Amino acid sequence: MPGRYSSCELPVKKTRRSSLRNRLYPFQGNFVWKGIRVERYKPSGDDWSEIIRQTIIGNHGERTDFELRYFEIRPGGYSSLETHRHEHVVIGIRGRGCVRLNRRDVEIGFLDVLYIAPHTVHRLYNPHNEPFGFFCIVDSKRDRPRPVRR
Amino acid sequence: MPGRYSSCELPVKKTRRSSLRNRLYPFQGNFVWKGIRVERYKPSGDDWSEIIRQTIIGNHGERTDFELRYFEIRPGGYSSLETHRHEHVVIGIRGRGCVRLNRRDVEIGFLDVLYIAPHTVHRLYNPHNEPFGFFCIVDSKRDRPRPVRR
Repeated sequence: MPGRYSSCELPVKKTRRSSLRNRLYPFQGNFVWKGIRVERYKPSGDDWSEIIRQTIIGNHGERTDFELRYFEIRPGGYSSLETHRHEHVVIGIRGRGCVRLNRRDVEIGFLDVLYIAPHTVHRLYNPHNEPFGFFCIVDSKRDRPRPVRR
Repeated sequence: MPGRYSSCELPVKKTRRSSLRNRLYPFQGNFVWKGIRVERYKPSGDDWSEIIRQTIIGNHGERTDFELRYFEIRPGGYSSLETHRHEHVVIGIRGRGCVRLNRRDVEIGFLDVLYIAPHTVHRLYNPHNEPFGFFCIVDSKRDRPRPVRR
């Protein structure tokens, strides 16, 4: 491309390195983090109720192979009943809640860690009187969840 | 390979699917998890002190693109001063501690989330009188840390 670059302006491979900065997301109490938005659980669907999402790591330009999200389910609420190939790692953070795993249910409390294997039909739900909050870590590249109707 | 398989025993692609099971690692208080071993921080080295590791997700046959580890630093202890291309996500869990990030220091407390960008020279340390414990999430495939001598 003659004329596009002078000899002092040779194109340099972009590394994106400069755009990645150390970032602290301080916990502000009440299970919100400074700099993180509280969002709908999913853009659409009617197979979930009373659940919100905060994506802490994964949508600020990071190059990690994973995302860290915080979900919170109000009393009586639940996530979609679904299955997918990708795995979930769930860490109990606030209150207590339950997880349906195929035909089994497990209870999750503070700092319990649950590994959900591929192709498990699962749903998280809150049968208690206090909010149930948890971290969920997933691969950045993952298959789309498939809803399960019952 | 004639004769190796009858027509009813065609080779089937192995998916390892059956070896992956849902697993709960209950938090047992005192920052240990049932089914998880407490290990040395690193097999060798003299640039770290008073720090232990528990790998919760990543060495039990999971196929996740990430690992979840819990580290704990006793009062006065510290991790290696090092740098690498891969990113860290640190979540404060127990007590408080500090993180050196190039020439800056940040304080980490309960549920604060810190993103450490590629190529940051960093060290975690505990100048306080109580243990400092944190989750650290990393990519499964990552470059080897490079120690920094000062």
